Amino acid sequence: MKILEDRILKEATVLPGNIIKIDGLLNHRVDTVLIREIAKEFKRIFSSTNPDIILTAEASGIALATLTANEFNLPFIFARKAKNSKMQGALYKSDIYSYTYEQKVTLFVEQKWLNKNSRVLIIDDFLAKGEALRGLTDIVHQAEAEVVGIGIAVEKAFQGGGDTFRNLGYNIHSLAMIESLDNGVIKFRK
Amino acid sequence: MKILEDRILKEATVLPGNIIKIDGLLNHRVDTVLIREIAKEFKRIFSSTNPDIILTAEASGIALATLTANEFNLPFIFARKAKNSKMQGALYKSDIYSYTYEQKVTLFVEQKWLNKNSRVLIIDDFLAKGEALRGLTDIVHQAEAEVVGIGIAVEKAFQGGGDTFRNLGYNIHSLAMIESLDNGVIKFRK
Repeated sequence: MKILEDRILKEATVLPGNIIKIDGLLNHRVDTVLIREIAKEFKRIFSSTNPDIILTAEASGIALATLTANEFNLPFIFARKAKNSKMQGALYKSDIYSYTYEQKVTLFVEQKWLNKNSRVLIIDDFLAKGEALRGLTDIVHQAEAEVVGIGIAVEKAFQGGGDTFRNLGYNIHSLAMIESLDNGVIKFRK
Repeated sequence: MKILEDRILKEATVLPGNIIKIDGLLNHRVDTVLIREIAKEFKRIFSSTNPDIILTAEASGIALATLTANEFNLPFIFARKAKNSKMQGALYKSDIYSYTYEQKVTLFVEQKWLNKNSRVLIIDDFLAKGEALRGLTDIVHQAEAEVVGIGIAVEKAFQGGGDTFRNLGYNIHSLAMIESLDNGVIKFRK
């Protein structure tokens, strides 16, 4: 998606350790005008899959999921990363490793919100090694629901998570695919 | 706001300890059609205050902030509740107590995203004792910016946080104000 790639080239910072920081667009300050364009693109790509619910993980996925769900006139669920005092019903859980926070994290979804045979569109802001996605797809499978699509804003393709899910047969689309960050230069996959 | 009050009466669960759970609308499964209506109401209420940025706290405020910011064609910032490896710039911080998670939490905002003299509209899903709001207003003051308005979806008025901020002179509007939850019955403030 050209407007997203252009904004990344213009505004992203590359940090040591192959980290790309685009916190002015997606995951700290959020540009909702850009996110609206991303949401429309996800609608265009995935409308033929007929999702009935959208799933993301807190916190950075929520803005994207909100506008995508709004385009589809669907609700969305955000998997929580901590159990709180209000979560008293039965839960689906999946343990993942968060490279951003450098610790094990458990994703939680209350079972009542994810129905058997539901058609789930997973939306997230970033895909690197695929840990969040492994947890989200695991939860969908626990619910005996179906992943009809996976929409990602920015994939760090060189970290392999996206290709792993493609090889597993998932219908995955990333709007900007970063091929390398060598020497601080952002190169996209053609 | 009648449609929000009606949905709360219809779908909320009252748990022991004066806890109200409306996780099918706002903060686990999110009804983006309802949130869009809430966002339009915030736009109507606060457009005369001319905000130039919207501020919320992760994670439950993000969906509301996304659609409200989109109505205003503004970006929003979500204060993070944990520092991650990408946050390498100077930070505003404020310590609050989270009753939902029963622990101290620090709110973080990268200084570069919140400008001096900025006109900040704070948006959040819930207001009870006002801890999150105390942290968010503190961060705005640290930045020498101005809080032009505070928009809350659901205020538990009997817990006093909202009135504290009203008495301090803030321009605060809550779309549903719960007066009591005694015996599990939801009563709104007239």
